[in-house]
Parts: sequence; C-alpha cells; structure tokens
Amino acid sequence: MRHLVSMNDLSKNEILTILDQAESFANGEKWSFTDKVFAANLFFEPSTRTKTSFEMAERKLGFEIIPFETSTSSLLKGETLYDTVKTLESIGVDVAVIRHTQDKYYEDLIGNVNLKIVNGGDGCGQHPTQSLLDLFTIKQEFGSFEGLKVAIIGDLQHSRVAKSNKDALTALGAEVIFSGPREWFLGENEESQNYYEIDEVIETADVVMLLRIQHERHVTKSFMTKEQYHLQYGLTVERAKRMKNNSIIMHPAPVNRNVEIADELVECEKSRIFKQMQNGVFTRMAVLRTLIES
Amino acid sequence: MRHLVSMNDLSKNEILTILDQAESFANGEKWSFTDKVFAANLFFEPSTRTKTSFEMAERKLGFEIIPFETSTSSLLKGETLYDTVKTLESIGVDVAVIRHTQDKYYEDLIGNVNLKIVNGGDGCGQHPTQSLLDLFTIKQEFGSFEGLKVAIIGDLQHSRVAKSNKDALTALGAEVIFSGPREWFLGENEESQNYYEIDEVIETADVVMLLRIQHERHVTKSFMTKEQYHLQYGLTVERAKRMKNNSIIMHPAPVNRNVEIADELVECEKSRIFKQMQNGVFTRMAVLRTLIES
Amino acid sequence: MRHLVSMNDLSKNEILTILDQAESFANGEKWSFTDKVFAANLFFEPSTRTKTSFEMAERKLGFEIIPFETSTSSLLKGETLYDTVKTLESIGVDVAVIRHTQDKYYEDLIGNVNLKIVNGGDGCGQHPTQSLLDLFTIKQEFGSFEGLKVAIIGDLQHSRVAKSNKDALTALGAEVIFSGPREWFLGENEESQNYYEIDEVIETADVVMLLRIQHERHVTKSFMTKEQYHLQYGLTVERAKRMKNNSIIMHPAPVNRNVEIADELVECEKSRIFKQMQNGVFTRMAVLRTLIES
Repeated sequence: MRHLVSMNDLSKNEILTILDQAESFANGEKWSFTDKVFAANLFFEPSTRTKTSFEMAERKLGFEIIPFETSTSSLLKGETLYDTVKTLESIGVDVAVIRHTQDKYYEDLIGNVNLKIVNGGDGCGQHPTQSLLDLFTIKQEFGSFEGLKVAIIGDLQHSRVAKSNKDALTALGAEVIFSGPREWFLGENEESQNYYEIDEVIETADVVMLLRIQHERHVTKSFMTKEQYHLQYGLTVERAKRMKNNSIIMHPAPVNRNVEIADELVECEKSRIFKQMQNGVFTRMAVLRTLIES
Repeated sequence: MRHLVSMNDLSKNEILTILDQAESFANGEKWSFTDKVFAANLFFEPSTRTKTSFEMAERKLGFEIIPFETSTSSLLKGETLYDTVKTLESIGVDVAVIRHTQDKYYEDLIGNVNLKIVNGGDGCGQHPTQSLLDLFTIKQEFGSFEGLKVAIIGDLQHSRVAKSNKDALTALGAEVIFSGPREWFLGENEESQNYYEIDEVIETADVVMLLRIQHERHVTKSFMTKEQYHLQYGLTVERAKRMKNNSIIMHPAPVNRNVEIADELVECEKSRIFKQMQNGVFTRMAVLRTLIES
Repeated sequence: MRHLVSMNDLSKNEILTILDQAESFANGEKWSFTDKVFAANLFFEPSTRTKTSFEMAERKLGFEIIPFETSTSSLLKGETLYDTVKTLESIGVDVAVIRHTQDKYYEDLIGNVNLKIVNGGDGCGQHPTQSLLDLFTIKQEFGSFEGLKVAIIGDLQHSRVAKSNKDALTALGAEVIFSGPREWFLGENEESQNYYEIDEVIETADVVMLLRIQHERHVTKSFMTKEQYHLQYGLTVERAKRMKNNSIIMHPAPVNRNVEIADELVECEKSRIFKQMQNGVFTRMAVLRTLIES
C-alpha cells in the first residue's frame, strides 16, 4: 500500500488486515520503525479531532512530526499543492496526512511524489481512516459483520464517511438501512430503496449510526428548528429505550447535543461515541504502520 | 492531587512540598515517568510566556505534547469545552493545561473527566503556577517566609495572581502590604487597610512585587500618562536606591518598561524578573510531576 | 561561532568548513549532542519552506523544539523583541532561529543575550543559511568554485540572498555575472558592470541561478505580463536547450512556474531546485552543530 486516499483502494482482505492490526494496537502491542520516520499533517480545512488523533497515532509509533501551518504556508503565495508536497518530500518527510477542501486533491500527487499520502478527508469525497475506525468499532463489538443490521441516520449526501461506510459494510456482509428526513432520500438510488422511518429502524438495528447535522445547510433551510429535528429524526431518550439488546450507538462527532442525540445519551451504556475516538488512534496507527512497512 | 486549578486547593504543606520539588529540579534533578505521558496545552487566551514555559517543563520531563490550536478547534463549531477535553482524554491525553477567558471554566470538568487538569489562568480568577513560581522565587532568596514583608504594587482588582499570592504569603507567615494609585484601594477590604504610599513601602519591603499595568484599562481611563504613572507609582531609579539591602524586585512580565519599572532596573542586581521565568519551568515541572505520580 | 546573522561574519575558511560538514550529513553522518538542546523558531514573516527546513534539521540533530507562535505572542502586547528573546533564554532555549521583517533586527540582541541566534532572514538584508545551501549545491556539483561562471538572473536589489551569494562566490573564486530586465541594473555598481543579455549568459554559465519575481512589485509596475517576462527574461524550454553541458539550474523557490522558468524545466535533468531544498536541511544541520559546539 503506497497511499491511502480512498476506501475503494482497499480490498475486503486489506480492510480486515488493518482492523486486526488496530486490534493488536488496542491490546497494547508496541511497534516502532528502525529508522526515524518523519510525518507532516497538512490540514487545509480545520479539524482538531482528526488532526490530534493522527498526531497521537504518529507519536505512539515514535514518528517525528514536522509542524505545517496551512494558514501561513507558501500556498498563499500561489504555490500549488504539488510543489508544497514535493518540498516536504525534498526536506525528508516520509508520510503526509492531508485534509483539503477540494475533492480528489490527491490526483495531482499520486504517481508523482514519493512520500506516502494518507487522505484525512477531501471535500465531499473520502475520509478513509474515519470509515476504518467505524468498522473497527463495530468489529470490536460484534466480532464480525455477517448478518448485522446497520442503520445510518442523517444526511448521506453530504457525508463522505457515510458513503464509504455503506459500501464497505455491505461488502463485509452487513445489511445497511437508512433514515432521516424523507426529502433527503428522494433519488433513484440504493439509499432511497432502503429508507425506513426512524421509529422502525431504531427497533431492528444492531448499530445506530448517527450523522452530524450541518445546522447552517439543513435545519435552517428546511425551516425546522433543532428541537423539531430532534423530536422527528433524532435519537431521543424514549427511542433509545426501544433499541435492541446489545445494540450500540455511533456518531462521528462533534455531536450536536439534543439535535442528533439527546444530551444524556452521549455517554450512555450503549454509546460508543468516545470509544470511536479512542479507536481512531489505534486504526490510524495500523494504517501508518501498513504504509511505512510496504 | 488530581488537578491543580486554584491555590485554594493546596494546603500549606502541599505548597511547601511543591517548592521543595522545584528546588530539586532547579538543582538538576532528573526525573521521567516509566510510561509515555501525553500532554496538551489549550490556550484559549494567548500567552506565549506561560505556554512556552509549560512546553519546556513538559519536554524536560520527557512528555509528548499533542499540539492543540484553539483558533481552528471544533469549539468554533459550537462544541463545548467538556466535549473537547473528553475528546483529548479519549485519544489518550493524560494531562491538559488550560487557559481560558471564562472564570472557573474548570467547574464543568472536575469530577467528569479522568485526565489531569492544570489551570493556566481562568478569566480574572486563578493562575496557580504563576503564584507558585513567585513563592518559589521568594523562598529561594530568603529561605523561608516568616517575618518577610512583601509589597504588592499595582492593580490588585484585575490581577488573578496578586490575590492568590496575598493569601498564600499570609498563610506562609509573611506580611503583605499594598501600594499604587489610591483610587484602586477604596473598598472595605484587607488590601485597603494595608495600603501605604509607594515611597513608604519601598523602604521597608523585602520583596517589591510590581503588577503589570493594563494600559488600555487604567492609564488612559485615569487621564494619566505613562510617564506620570511611572513618576508617581512606578519603581524609578531613585526609588530603587532607597530599597533595603538584600531586598528584591519581582514582576510577572511582560514588563512595560519605564511604566511599572525603569528600563535600566529590569536586569539590575536586585531584579529577579528573568529569574522568575527560569523558576517557572522548575515550578511547573514540580506541579506536573506531582499530578502524574498521584 | 556564537551566532550566524550574516554571511559577512564568515571567513572563506569558515564557509568551507560548514560546507564540508553539510557534505558529511548528506552522506549520512549521525551526530547528536550529549545534553538536550532546546531550539525555538521565531518566524515573524511567514516562510513554510525555511521554517520546516530548520525544523527538520533540528529534529535530525535530536533537538527539542519549543513552538513559538508569532501571531499570538506577547510582542502583540508591546513587548520588544529583546524581551521576547530574553524570555526564551530564561526558560532554557539554547538556540533561536529568527526571521523578521526588520533589517538587522539582531543588532539589539547580539552581545546582550546568551542563547545562539541564527538569522532566518531579516527584511531586505541577509539570509545566510539560504546562501550556504546554494554554495553547498554548487560545490556538490562541481567540487570547487574556482573558474566557475555563475549567472544570477532577476531582481538583485530586492534579493537578500543574491547579494550574499555574489560576495561569497566571488571570494571563493567564481565569476558572477547578471541578467534580467535592464532597468533593474542601472546604477554605477558591480552588478551593472557585469550585466549581459539573457541569451548571452545562458550559453556561457555553469550555474543559472534564477531569482523569484515578486509579482506585485515588479511585473505589474513595469506593465509587463507574466508571459512577457517569461519570454524576455525567463528560462524558456528553448533557452534551456542552449545551456552548456553539465551546467545546472537553481532557484530559491517557491517557483512561479512559467514566469522565471518554464513549467516542464522545474524537474528537468539540469534542475537542482528540489535538490537545493534537500541540501538546505544538511546545511542547516551543519550550521546548528557548529553553533552548539562552539
């Protein structure tokens, strides 16, 4: 594996191998490379959560991190992303984690640079390590994906993670169903065909995967208050009571408390929300190790 | 000690134990923890001096530091401080140093998070490591606090450190007196009762502790120029000559040269201003070690 | 060597010693200091390239780096550069790399501070490590400077590096000639006397050293489009074909592609542009080692 830019690059077996490696790291396995490894994290779109998670994974693997401030970079002087990345390669950076607002920003880089690239999110495209940490959290809970019913609730169209998760979960043997405001599921696509009302999915799903609402875009646009969204499509305390035994709640965070999910459920027994963040570090360690060793 | 958020949390004995540990670090004692310790410094209010001092202390103890940029954090997306800190805890951060504009920001955190919190300053409240480094500098100089006369000169009302210092110094056996523009000492409180004219305190104090003037707030408001403040309430070269033998000058910095203190006195023989900064590192090492070991 | 602020501080022998040390680092020599060395990089003018290069050099030497954010520093509260640097010295920083918009900012510091200063660029003045990496790249290529013809093409007046390079190259035995828009070479100085037309220099130079065009200042002012500059004064594909065998192309970067140099030449066989960046790390390691050991 030279780069990880999209879940589509990974076969079912490669995914399972990464999840196994993440499991080993979660169980305390130590690993470090013989040579110093230099990483740089280029976040052109802010994301403390993802960035700090990568920083932690890199430090746990013993990498050295070259700080890169996108706000003062030469990109502001009109330099291309290619020249910036080539510069980092020249000074000795081995792996670059990049988040960028532009879809498929990495197409200019793949094949032209020698350092390894991990996509930390591209526009409305992919965010493969988030998908992998979600998969890892599910596997950790249920042992396998066969026969599981996973409900994804919210705005799939604007969620890079949800699309990847749907594909990967299906490939791994799970059934994926959808819910949320019906007007977000109108097209002639798989999601719309597997759409169910929230009160129906909540009782049958093994995994209730909530997506973050982008206030600005959706709620205001549909003349719906946060309170209305919560009552109609959110995971209320009342709905949580009707969830299956052993089912779990997931959310990529940051959570809008009392919108997607009731405040008191964020850390309830079924919630794996902070567990996902913990697993993110182990999953990213697994991805980085795989890249450096190949 | 699970957290250090306020000087009020510390007994007289705990203070003295921290000062002893700081002394050992100042004398070159090496210490590092068996496991990797991960720290994050969350400065929601800028302060290079305090932040770099903590960074140095953490590095000298061998901690790994996860960078946290408050300007691009998810707090901007409406996330609460609690969720941000809980996220850092989830990814594996052991200790968070937090400076925040809000008084007692830590009340939402204490008891609800498992990582250790060091208060790097809250609003107009506490700044315990600054107090401890001031105490350490005095103890280093005089051996003990018994019978010392400490003069605090300037605006106590807006100084979080001065209030803590007054309480701690009194508890440790020193006498604390006050000076500065009389209109800042009008209330029915201890400070006003122990108020003296600058020319009186300067001759009797063992420690002349100057506070930083906030130009915007005070000097302009009182229609006083910087030059006038210096002449009436500042430590002029002439006043410094009348200070007691063996007495010392302190200031938390950054100094307004020729306002609180004459330019040529900043590094004079009596001045401990840069010594305080040096001691800040040892004091913070002592606090961090105490937290990690308990 | 207590500081490195200007190429003028270095004798011919000191330059050659640094270049030899850079060569050793390029060949894989390992070195680290017995004590922990603490560095801080103060970039008051943004420059990702130089800053990351120093960060890499420092990390390869095993230094600990204390992050310093100029955008939130106490300098904004009116603190002088001297007080800021003295603060860093007090908390234990051993070496400070400083870039500042003010010419000769370092004059207030030299002789007054004990930490070591490396000038990372001052206003329109010096940028000694860039000069040294340019010299190293030439020496690496040709073995020595004697008899080499080096053509510097572009705006010398606004290039701190070009001026230093001219002096150093001449002292080391190379001949330096100049080209670019004639109106930039009108004075009664050495450069104007050694001015030649671009098509002439291109065929005789061993080193074609291009300078970066500051769009705002020059091209617009002279009512010349980028395309016109490229055709008249740039290194076009056609001109590159007429360059001498074994001659090389240099540029300090970031490159304005298709202005100073044709896009397809940036990574051509003759180009040492990315090599220069690679060499920058080794050169800075050599400078830092020399400072720490002396």
